[in-house]
Amino acid sequence: MANYTETSYSKWLTLSITLTLATISASAAYMWSKRREENLNQKLIKELQKSLEESFKKCAAERKGRIRAQQDLRKAMTQPKTDKMVTSYPMAPIAIIRSCFSTRNGTPRQPLIVPLARACLMFDTTLVPPASLEGLEEYSHCWIIYVFHLNTDLDKLWKNPSRSKLKAKVRVPRLKGEKMGLFATRSPHRPCPIGLTVAKVESVQGNSILLSGVDLVDGTPVLDVKPYLPYCDSIEGATVPHWVKMDDLLVVASVEFSEDFIATLTECWPAIDKKSLYTSPEEFQILIKQVLSWDIRSLSQRTQVKENCVRTETEQAYSKEGRDIIYHLNLEGLDVAYRITSNSNVIVESVTFSPK
Amino acid sequence: MANYTETSYSKWLTLSITLTLATISASAAYMWSKRREENLNQKLIKELQKSLEESFKKCAAERKGRIRAQQDLRKAMTQPKTDKMVTSYPMAPIAIIRSCFSTRNGTPRQPLIVPLARACLMFDTTLVPPASLEGLEEYSHCWIIYVFHLNTDLDKLWKNPSRSKLKAKVRVPRLKGEKMGLFATRSPHRPCPIGLTVAKVESVQGNSILLSGVDLVDGTPVLDVKPYLPYCDSIEGATVPHWVKMDDLLVVASVEFSEDFIATLTECWPAIDKKSLYTSPEEFQILIKQVLSWDIRSLSQRTQVKENCVRTETEQAYSKEGRDIIYHLNLEGLDVAYRITSNSNVIVESVTFSPK
Repeated sequence: MANYTETSYSKWLTLSITLTLATISASAAYMWSKRREENLNQKLIKELQKSLEESFKKCAAERKGRIRAQQDLRKAMTQPKTDKMVTSYPMAPIAIIRSCFSTRNGTPRQPLIVPLARACLMFDTTLVPPASLEGLEEYSHCWIIYVFHLNTDLDKLWKNPSRSKLKAKVRVPRLKGEKMGLFATRSPHRPCPIGLTVAKVESVQGNSILLSGVDLVDGTPVLDVKPYLPYCDSIEGATVPHWVKMDDLLVVASVEFSEDFIATLTECWPAIDKKSLYTSPEEFQILIKQVLSWDIRSLSQRTQVKENCVRTETEQAYSKEGRDIIYHLNLEGLDVAYRITSNSNVIVESVTFSPK
Repeated sequence: MANYTETSYSKWLTLSITLTLATISASAAYMWSKRREENLNQKLIKELQKSLEESFKKCAAERKGRIRAQQDLRKAMTQPKTDKMVTSYPMAPIAIIRSCFSTRNGTPRQPLIVPLARACLMFDTTLVPPASLEGLEEYSHCWIIYVFHLNTDLDKLWKNPSRSKLKAKVRVPRLKGEKMGLFATRSPHRPCPIGLTVAKVESVQGNSILLSGVDLVDGTPVLDVKPYLPYCDSIEGATVPHWVKMDDLLVVASVEFSEDFIATLTECWPAIDKKSLYTSPEEFQILIKQVLSWDIRSLSQRTQVKENCVRTETEQAYSKEGRDIIYHLNLEGLDVAYRITSNSNVIVESVTFSPK
């Protein structure tokens, strides 16, 4: 009986010990594998974190580049359109006209009819070295190619030539309102607002040319100056349509000056003396006489008088007698007041200093 | 004795069982904690992978944006600078010249000296409605204001007028190489490369003007057309310097045509017949005679002959006798080969079809 219990006990013991050892070794193995798995995960996590960091850096750089490029682009886009530049030539004025005609009103309708009409053509020295004018003085006359810079529709024209409301036909004074194709006229309203005029070359001084007989308004931008070559430019027997005539320019009967005028001119003269293109009040008076020898009034102004002074323009002033309208002409920054009698005698009333 | 062994055995057994249970529970606990840790890691890894993915996407988007912006910027930057636009007027050509003179060589040095020199001034209908030409046909002549588009320095000029290497003085053929200020000449190399020429108005057809007596090369862009007004444009008694003379244009003694010429012209004619400005080979031959009646060779070409044919230009061809140089002139896409004898007789050798 004792033997039997002894053996059964030892069996149990062996079994339990084996079991214990098995359990321990099993859990040990399990722990070991887990440890390896854990290390792998840790490595993966580190790698992921690293590449995420790098990706952030790259992203930030791209963003910075994108923003800079877009800023520059905005700057660039504020410039005129591509398509326009392709189809047009940028013409930089090389000179500016300093003329006795402060406003368009009074500026002669063609060159050389007002011999004393003076202008100084002043070149931009950054574009034109004075040496380039050598020899020009030996010519009696020169062409001036300029921009009609006072056209009110210029902006539209520059922005989109094809869209700008170009008038194909223009009213011709000589034809009392009848219209002609613009290319049959010298109208300033042209697809390319370029003007062509001729003037007498008085002298060349440094980077400027003193001209006379001009029909250019003060501030006109000049694109080019060319010598007048009679053998190419003066065409014998060139003909014009019947409706184009010199007497399109109406000559007045006489030009007289009131006593007031003499007094007021002597008074004003010092204000412009220094910068004037004229050496004395007397010379300036001759200019006024030459300018007013032609009826410089617009068609509407003339007809208005014929219609017995229909008072459309309320601010319109009248002479003491209340019969003649007082017109104004600005020369060299002086306002010249004058009237035209029914027999087209011009009476110059007075002068006042009125810079533009 | 039996009791003793029984108790020791049972002790061992309890111990081992306890140990087993302890081990099992311990490893269970360990497994549990590990499981949690593992789940956390897995979660972290998933999160990292997700944000990495997102970061990549964002990065790609930024990159795309940056590249697009930079491309647009490049486009925009190929346009002229701001400051230039402020100081220059964009002039869009309103017409193009279709002229008999395919190249500059042979194009007359002044208008109206080659009466049969024809051109068709074709207006851009998007800029110029045909009605704007009404009345122009009634004038005998018109001015053409155009761009010297073949000047090789144009690009520089447009990019930066103040920097472009403008030559202040130019060589005057008449003065055998002596220089004059460019504004004392009609040189095409001017700060504003605008040309002025006059032509005879033959007819107006729809949106184009047929002209004759032109000195314009084929493809010339036109900025403006103005009627010629004798009372403003033709100046009586206008004078020029002594060095400016008509005989600056050398007249040749005679112009003769070889038999070869007649044969080759008849052969070539069909190739240009349809689009030619001339109605027959005979009329075309008169044009050639008129063009070659003036010595159209450059100063260097002429002097080269005087210097007894110094063979600087190796590719220069010579006539059979080996004495006269063979010169070329391109009219209406036909290459006209001619030579000038020592007594300045022009012999027209042959014609070959050679479109530009």
